[in-house]
Amino acid sequence: MLSLRDAERRGRPDIVHLCLLNALGTPLNKEQMLSVYVHTLNDEVISVAPEVRLPRNYNRFTSLIEQLFQTHHVPTEGKTLLEIQSETLQDLLRHLHPSRVLALSVLGEPSTTAKAIEPLVSEENPTIIVGGFPRGHLSDQTTRLSDAIVSIDPEGLDAWIVVSRLLYEFEKQSRIPEKRWDQRRKE
Amino acid sequence: MLSLRDAERRGRPDIVHLCLLNALGTPLNKEQMLSVYVHTLNDEVISVAPEVRLPRNYNRFTSLIEQLFQTHHVPTEGKTLLEIQSETLQDLLRHLHPSRVLALSVLGEPSTTAKAIEPLVSEENPTIIVGGFPRGHLSDQTTRLSDAIVSIDPEGLDAWIVVSRLLYEFEKQSRIPEKRWDQRRKE
Repeated sequence: MLSLRDAERRGRPDIVHLCLLNALGTPLNKEQMLSVYVHTLNDEVISVAPEVRLPRNYNRFTSLIEQLFQTHHVPTEGKTLLEIQSETLQDLLRHLHPSRVLALSVLGEPSTTAKAIEPLVSEENPTIIVGGFPRGHLSDQTTRLSDAIVSIDPEGLDAWIVVSRLLYEFEKQSRIPEKRWDQRRKE
Repeated sequence: MLSLRDAERRGRPDIVHLCLLNALGTPLNKEQMLSVYVHTLNDEVISVAPEVRLPRNYNRFTSLIEQLFQTHHVPTEGKTLLEIQSETLQDLLRHLHPSRVLALSVLGEPSTTAKAIEPLVSEENPTIIVGGFPRGHLSDQTTRLSDAIVSIDPEGLDAWIVVSRLLYEFEKQSRIPEKRWDQRRKE
């Protein structure tokens, strides 16, 4: 049945769309504290500007991504919001200089979202890797780049749910909800 | 511009799709501790069985919902997974007998997700209402049905992000992550 190389880990644009919508709508992103990258199996990296307003509608999203593959950045004039370039995950991490890398995998050490996030909150530049594919696991190459590999549920969870929980827990442990209300009261 | 009655609060199927995917993939739902209903502005209620595997793909989702509007339940044979019937939100709540109703609104009392969930965890039958529309607010009629109306972010958040955070926080305060690992260790 599976004739493509690494067929189980081939990204599905619908999963990427769901992960991005769950990441970009967070207060963490609105506070400009989040950088989002999508790495593809063909070793391309899409850089996502925090202020991009991604289409909520899936068909408009896939049109946008098709345009991105043609022009390499969108929009073609003005500030770039999405950009694609050839890059391995290893090279991407080298450029990001993470102070600590957490990877999520159902094969990882049993943990909870809260415990997985704890060591990241005091880090200068923490990075999280979540596999945006329906089945299959992170490659050995990817797990070797990680300081910790944890599982936050015995059955495994959909990638977009993992993204939501990790970012919310990071915000919570960084007291961002309280800070945002304090800021509003001062205005 | 807005010529439809309550145009701002007209549901968008893409928002409903995102909310449902964020709710149905949770451990809370897998533990059969969640019941999900979609109430429409035309006073129809869609009941969602916890075991339904909703299409991740938006186009397949809208086809399924079109079928549902024609046949009133899907699949047409075997156990019903989605069902639609005429019902007001008031009547739905009467049937559900909630012990406490929490409504989320950017006009509500400033709070955090964790604090908003706290009073629900010890309740026998807590119910949460989230508006699945892009702008606008819950109607007065809806807020009158609620015991508390809270806002979890000063800017407001996308409906699917609100759903994710509330359900995760409810699970966390109910110690479901730990219980699921304990259960796995016993197997």
